[in-house]
Amino acid sequence: MAPIDLPFTLAEYTRRLTNVRAEMARRGLDVLFVEDPSNIAWLTGYDGWSFYVHQGVIVTHEHDPFWWGRRQDSNGALRTVWMSSDHVLSYADHFVQSTERHPMQDLAGHLLDMSLGRARIGVEMDNYYFSAKAYTSLVAALPDADILDATALVNWQRGVKSEAEIDYMRRAARISERLVDLARERIEPGLPKNMLVADIMAEAIRGNGEDWGDYAAIVPLLPSGTDAAAPHLTWDGRPFRKGEATFFELSGCYHRYHAPFCRTVFLGEPPETIKRAEAALVEGLEAGLAAARPGNRACDVANALAAPLEKAGIERGARCGYPIGLSYPPDWGERTISFRAEDETLLEAGMTFHFMPGLWMKDWGLEITESIVIREDGPAECLCDRPRELFVKP
Amino acid sequence: MAPIDLPFTLAEYTRRLTNVRAEMARRGLDVLFVEDPSNIAWLTGYDGWSFYVHQGVIVTHEHDPFWWGRRQDSNGALRTVWMSSDHVLSYADHFVQSTERHPMQDLAGHLLDMSLGRARIGVEMDNYYFSAKAYTSLVAALPDADILDATALVNWQRGVKSEAEIDYMRRAARISERLVDLARERIEPGLPKNMLVADIMAEAIRGNGEDWGDYAAIVPLLPSGTDAAAPHLTWDGRPFRKGEATFFELSGCYHRYHAPFCRTVFLGEPPETIKRAEAALVEGLEAGLAAARPGNRACDVANALAAPLEKAGIERGARCGYPIGLSYPPDWGERTISFRAEDETLLEAGMTFHFMPGLWMKDWGLEITESIVIREDGPAECLCDRPRELFVKP
Repeated sequence: MAPIDLPFTLAEYTRRLTNVRAEMARRGLDVLFVEDPSNIAWLTGYDGWSFYVHQGVIVTHEHDPFWWGRRQDSNGALRTVWMSSDHVLSYADHFVQSTERHPMQDLAGHLLDMSLGRARIGVEMDNYYFSAKAYTSLVAALPDADILDATALVNWQRGVKSEAEIDYMRRAARISERLVDLARERIEPGLPKNMLVADIMAEAIRGNGEDWGDYAAIVPLLPSGTDAAAPHLTWDGRPFRKGEATFFELSGCYHRYHAPFCRTVFLGEPPETIKRAEAALVEGLEAGLAAARPGNRACDVANALAAPLEKAGIERGARCGYPIGLSYPPDWGERTISFRAEDETLLEAGMTFHFMPGLWMKDWGLEITESIVIREDGPAECLCDRPRELFVKP
Repeated sequence: MAPIDLPFTLAEYTRRLTNVRAEMARRGLDVLFVEDPSNIAWLTGYDGWSFYVHQGVIVTHEHDPFWWGRRQDSNGALRTVWMSSDHVLSYADHFVQSTERHPMQDLAGHLLDMSLGRARIGVEMDNYYFSAKAYTSLVAALPDADILDATALVNWQRGVKSEAEIDYMRRAARISERLVDLARERIEPGLPKNMLVADIMAEAIRGNGEDWGDYAAIVPLLPSGTDAAAPHLTWDGRPFRKGEATFFELSGCYHRYHAPFCRTVFLGEPPETIKRAEAALVEGLEAGLAAARPGNRACDVANALAAPLEKAGIERGARCGYPIGLSYPPDWGERTISFRAEDETLLEAGMTFHFMPGLWMKDWGLEITESIVIREDGPAECLCDRPRELFVKP
């Protein structure tokens, strides 16, 4: 077996674990069971498309974490995690999608073996992919334990990025720029949409020189015309048409780190409505970037964005940003902070966000967004470097 | 807004709904809440990458189903579902990833408005993406209701495919064949793996002539050499090497229908171990295909496969097949039947499976698989048509 090629130093994994344990201690948790694939990877290095079955990491205060999953995937764990092989636990295949038994019964057995049957155990009640049945099965199998909600406990520790993580995101951003450049260059009336998506997907995975591209946690989204009112439609084989705006919501991915980036291309002469919206949106983005600095709150960014939009008569009604970094499908967000009026979380240097004030109106859509890093001082740094405007192809 | 271009006839959606309601009645359910995106699409036509937030379909006995989800995604629902616009319900954005409120509280409000507060409500306890917190929030918000486990209720109704569905799968299979052909043709020592993945992804989305390609529910898996011991590793930028086997686990996707297809390519002269395994595996596949017919059970296929493998000293320990069809990430399986010794489900004409006896041994892997349709009589039909063998490039 080849030596394990970890994406980060052991010191970085140790620091992550220390922070997670400190938060566990603060909440009085003896054990944390982590099923969110992004959290698993961030804590252990595990990387594989096996999150469609139950798997996770057992974090305690005493021992290195234990990877736990399906037996056939333990081979992948042995090849990707920093812990020694006796910290890779697995369950037999007859637990997989069975109506008679549940993998959580196997997990409970391991916890009992570790004398944790009466422990206070945190679980991710609302992260991917810890199901309702996983919860009720674990509760039933550990009647003397306290099973407590630790949703996003790890996600919150991921908020402030290390230099190494920001380096990965910068590399992802170089790929994101290439994708937006390619989309802008190749889109034209008559081109079937899937043909452009094919080119974008290939470019994303070719990557940027030595930096090979990984799969993004969300496929390219690029609705056109009236369909751009709907933010999450994917593609079909119909051609692009003159007189329509298409927004491109794309992200390069490097070692599972993302830098989402959206631009909109109008084929033909954009109507005044869209030009006015563009002007207000760019003004709002600039105000938001200026507000995105340490000591300010998440809502300050949202409010800064909202002012010029409101002046232009545009009410969004949706949050306008979320933290980003390491992720797996189905979402590249970290699901902690939201840029919205009710979120008073203080911003800190090293936090990274997709500042994402998409406009999804009744019969058109416009996306101009930036992936950003909160700096020590001054306005936020944008990871991608492309004109902040509606691209027009006459 | 353009007229809705449904992938199936209204008659087909009506038949699906009738079958689901019959099973609900059998279990005494007044309501079924469906969160699995594959089940949502199968029942309503809804198609969008929005399953990273809570959304679903409310099925009752009296009314057309209700699509329910995030407000910004209701625009996508209005563009993709067959129900009228008053059957599209949505929740405000402050429910999204909030620590104060949960979308299930909004869902409960709708159910109460429909006078279903004391109903017997089925939920998908172990499908994607109904979380533990979704369950406990719904239970808390509907104290007088009976919330019951209806995991895979809809999935079981999906097992026997209509002619229209099988037609989509045949179209997906033409794409799958192109992907395997391309992989076999372009793989060579020195080619960085991500470069081949880029070509495969692009080909998948270009599709086959008029049949535009959709994203598969799983990214291409193609581990090489000793890494092929691990079935779910994805790619990196390292080159293919002479003397190594690489298996390709790929699927074309047409209107969300899949036809997974795996072949293995050896660069150089394969060792005797792998050639012996190939011979036993092909013999097992042929025995399994012969056993895959109406009246036989799922375990009969598994046992037919196992005999020649055991004779060759190979014990797999994992199931060797699962139903396929319409799917969204993270899995293209239907999660009902498994081809394994303990599954006695009777096979029926029109069922479709990925017959998937992957060999993941200590330091090598071999995948030769077939997507199949159970026929009225005779052995199963293979959706793809390529030699059932290890491909060798000397």
